Amino acid sequence: MSMWTKQATERARRLNAAAPLTDGKVVAGDNVTALLERIICSEDRVCLEGDNQKQADFLASCLTEVDPGLIHDLHIVQSGLVLSEHLDLFRLGIARKLDFSYSGPQSAAIARALDQGKIELGAIHTYIELFARYYIDLTPNVALIAAVSADRDGNLYTGPNTEDTPTIVEATAYKSGIVVAQVNRIVDRVPRVDIPADQIDFIVEAPRPFYVEPLFTRDPGAVTDTQVFMAMMALKGIYAKYRPKRLNHGIGFSTAAIELLLPTYGEELGLRGNVATHWALNPHPTLIPAIESGWVQQIHCFGSEVGMDAYMSARPDVYFTGKDGTLRSNRLLCQNAGLYACDMFIGSTLQIDLAGNSSTVTPDRIAGFGGAPNMGADAHGRRHTSDAWLKAGYEAAGAEGPLVRGRKLVVQMVETFGDGMKPAFVEELDSIALARKLNMPLAPVMIFGDDVTHIVTEEGIANLLLCRSTDDIEQAIRGVAGYTPVGMARDHAKVAELRARGVIQRPEDLGIDPLKANRNLLAARSIRDLVTWSDGLYAPPSKFRNW
Amino acid sequence: MSMWTKQATERARRLNAAAPLTDGKVVAGDNVTALLERIICSEDRVCLEGDNQKQADFLASCLTEVDPGLIHDLHIVQSGLVLSEHLDLFRLGIARKLDFSYSGPQSAAIARALDQGKIELGAIHTYIELFARYYIDLTPNVALIAAVSADRDGNLYTGPNTEDTPTIVEATAYKSGIVVAQVNRIVDRVPRVDIPADQIDFIVEAPRPFYVEPLFTRDPGAVTDTQVFMAMMALKGIYAKYRPKRLNHGIGFSTAAIELLLPTYGEELGLRGNVATHWALNPHPTLIPAIESGWVQQIHCFGSEVGMDAYMSARPDVYFTGKDGTLRSNRLLCQNAGLYACDMFIGSTLQIDLAGNSSTVTPDRIAGFGGAPNMGADAHGRRHTSDAWLKAGYEAAGAEGPLVRGRKLVVQMVETFGDGMKPAFVEELDSIALARKLNMPLAPVMIFGDDVTHIVTEEGIANLLLCRSTDDIEQAIRGVAGYTPVGMARDHAKVAELRARGVIQRPEDLGIDPLKANRNLLAARSIRDLVTWSDGLYAPPSKFRNW
Repeated sequence: MSMWTKQATERARRLNAAAPLTDGKVVAGDNVTALLERIICSEDRVCLEGDNQKQADFLASCLTEVDPGLIHDLHIVQSGLVLSEHLDLFRLGIARKLDFSYSGPQSAAIARALDQGKIELGAIHTYIELFARYYIDLTPNVALIAAVSADRDGNLYTGPNTEDTPTIVEATAYKSGIVVAQVNRIVDRVPRVDIPADQIDFIVEAPRPFYVEPLFTRDPGAVTDTQVFMAMMALKGIYAKYRPKRLNHGIGFSTAAIELLLPTYGEELGLRGNVATHWALNPHPTLIPAIESGWVQQIHCFGSEVGMDAYMSARPDVYFTGKDGTLRSNRLLCQNAGLYACDMFIGSTLQIDLAGNSSTVTPDRIAGFGGAPNMGADAHGRRHTSDAWLKAGYEAAGAEGPLVRGRKLVVQMVETFGDGMKPAFVEELDSIALARKLNMPLAPVMIFGDDVTHIVTEEGIANLLLCRSTDDIEQAIRGVAGYTPVGMARDHAKVAELRARGVIQRPEDLGIDPLKANRNLLAARSIRDLVTWSDGLYAPPSKFRNW
Repeated sequence: MSMWTKQATERARRLNAAAPLTDGKVVAGDNVTALLERIICSEDRVCLEGDNQKQADFLASCLTEVDPGLIHDLHIVQSGLVLSEHLDLFRLGIARKLDFSYSGPQSAAIARALDQGKIELGAIHTYIELFARYYIDLTPNVALIAAVSADRDGNLYTGPNTEDTPTIVEATAYKSGIVVAQVNRIVDRVPRVDIPADQIDFIVEAPRPFYVEPLFTRDPGAVTDTQVFMAMMALKGIYAKYRPKRLNHGIGFSTAAIELLLPTYGEELGLRGNVATHWALNPHPTLIPAIESGWVQQIHCFGSEVGMDAYMSARPDVYFTGKDGTLRSNRLLCQNAGLYACDMFIGSTLQIDLAGNSSTVTPDRIAGFGGAPNMGADAHGRRHTSDAWLKAGYEAAGAEGPLVRGRKLVVQMVETFGDGMKPAFVEELDSIALARKLNMPLAPVMIFGDDVTHIVTEEGIANLLLCRSTDDIEQAIRGVAGYTPVGMARDHAKVAELRARGVIQRPEDLGIDPLKANRNLLAARSIRDLVTWSDGLYAPPSKFRNW
């Protein structure tokens, strides 16, 4: 064996061992666990596709059934760790080390497992940071992925939920790794080839379609008057001021409220066509009224969203679609677009400290980052300008000129008190206690204060671009922190000075009457309204239907 | 026509008009210009693949022959503008607006064309910034690309020079655009499918293989003693200190010298296995001795390099290769890896100002940026740690702790006097004059000073991480600027203080004897030596062969 072809030799050995279990590339469902025992070795790096939405759930369940005596100490490298099976791997000793991005529903279970020493944590990444490492030092030996359908040669149709798949497969297949795809159906001819058969080693028809979580559906019926109020402030104080045309919205009701106000309050402000025309965005159902009202020119998506497929197929001028007529999503490309081609990121958070650092980690929940740290970071490598970007940069520098870079607008929206009346503003982030407990050199911070440009609460907007000292920043934050202990401890004279300087803007400074801020302003006030706006094309999941 | 399917309708209209000129997807070379006149319309956004290395040169030449009365005012959106035909499009009035990344050999012609108002400049981007905009606001209507071979269905083999192709095609094909591929050969079966036929509309066998420039080949015979000297300083002062395992090297003789010193001086410093094990790198022939000496675990490549293909095919444990045995490159993925998964970028520049801003623009040459601003930027979205990254961050902050982020090491190597004895250190970058002349809001700066961590010259190393004021930075830079006017104007007392603080390190501070710094330390002293190191697998282009 050549000293330079060890990986290819090992790959051939494993494929050879697996051959008796397969019919060409096709593996019967009952044989999958045995197959995995032959193609995976202890200490392998394994990506068990775990995206933000799509889950290779059948392969996950098969992997939990391998003999831990044979296969143990796997290093799991995947963006989403969201199924209970993903945690089972660690509980059973099949996996030991973890590098991931997002955990969502498993955030409490991950915190417990880390606490009990069941998981050796590599790091929590943003999505494209983890993808970056797939090509440098965390290349998977085996990838277990999910697609909609495959032909018998192994050509895959990933369909609307393409998401991470091409990025995972390329890293694995081109580095002598092994790729197994679970598909909903094996067909004679796939509707379009999203992944060529050359990159796929095995396919298995799963007993049920892969699981997808409707992560980005926000029921307009649950948007509160306070969220409408904050959305109005954001629209008048930030959208109307900077006029960002290219942007990303995070998950959450605050930004859903903004989406639902575009055709009403946004129209009143004369913003249609001047802001929010080009998006890097998941298929938010709450954007339908704005799309139908002619606000949106183009949207590129990270993934799909349950119920949105027929609507998007009927709106190909807006969405990226393939020749089969369905959405093409791609998380890496969309995250890169959010980093380098968007002028604004606006999203919600759980905790903000006095330097503007924000986090969604609590002592017993480690939700991961997803895309926020990437979308919410100022890209120092950006070299093209836009009016919105330059305006923000000039404010931050207090100067203009050929060496003054612009700034990405990074807006954090948060009500001063969150669920259970927990204050959103804190002297120290909970994530710091967690970092101490788990011996992490860097606390898991969602967005660092030096990247945040604005904080919006029901008390007003703090514009950190205009702050000139750490004291400015602290008092600007206290000044919008309401009746939280952090807010109560404000220096009133300093806050008044910041307001005079325009660093803090109150609703009345913006000419916004809180009495007018109510749900009647929303373009859609229920899921059913969204269906109507979509001309019946949006098909919400049953849990969102109450009619 | 539905108001939501205008793009698909327009696409169908164009394909229909083109049908009489084709045999299925296959177009005869003689018909290409006529085809382009039917599938391209004035004011379209067109990507005429123009990568860093690979060029769709036949399609470029056909595009220059369309009737400018029929097709004019195109908006060219492509990373590399490097062929004379690319400029001809503007001269002939076929194209008007330009968004690009890199121009290399056409840098003087672009400067002239801009000056004469022949080109309306959108912006100069880094590669993945332009790719980002392909998915947001610069989506191509038509992409004219290059591949090695195609089957008659249109499945493409892009082979070692995959580069930008998948990213361009995805943006175009999934947004109702039209994709034409020139290929070296139409074959019955491609060696591997890199781009599925579903994404390709037309293929044409070009009269000669697409042009590729050997951009990353540096003849060891041309490395000077001074470059060896600077490379020793970098190795002892930076590599040995921070121990970056994951890195990128820029183009240029200074970094080529470092590569050639790894197996000699690097070995002496005990660095093998502790630094420079994982790379985002073009296939530099000068890295062959280090690879053969066991320094390198893995390399992911932006593109290929003329003459390196057989060597890389024989080293699949190191390089990413496909099942056909040849390299798989991918510029987007590799640039993302360089941004998010590398701890160091080190490269050369032409000019540095007193704030550490650097540029390769001169009044009569606009070379563009390529990847440097991206590789050389500190990624604020990075959340995983490494020892090298944390060490740099702690130095910059003058503190450690759970909220102290690390820093990407961004090293600029430059001799104090460049070609024609032009000083590399200047009070004001030439690019500022250019920005004024062309009315650009932001000067084309390669790397901004706030991202630069170290400057290495033959006089020493300036560590900007340790600077605490703009005066520190200015004097640290003057302190390594040698006998240039900038260097002569140094404040000697301040420079002595900076040296005492370790901000400036002289060769003697590092224990490096300039008398020992000579070409005999290079692991290879000629192209022929590289061929020998490669076991005869490296096949240098004829212009580099002198035996």
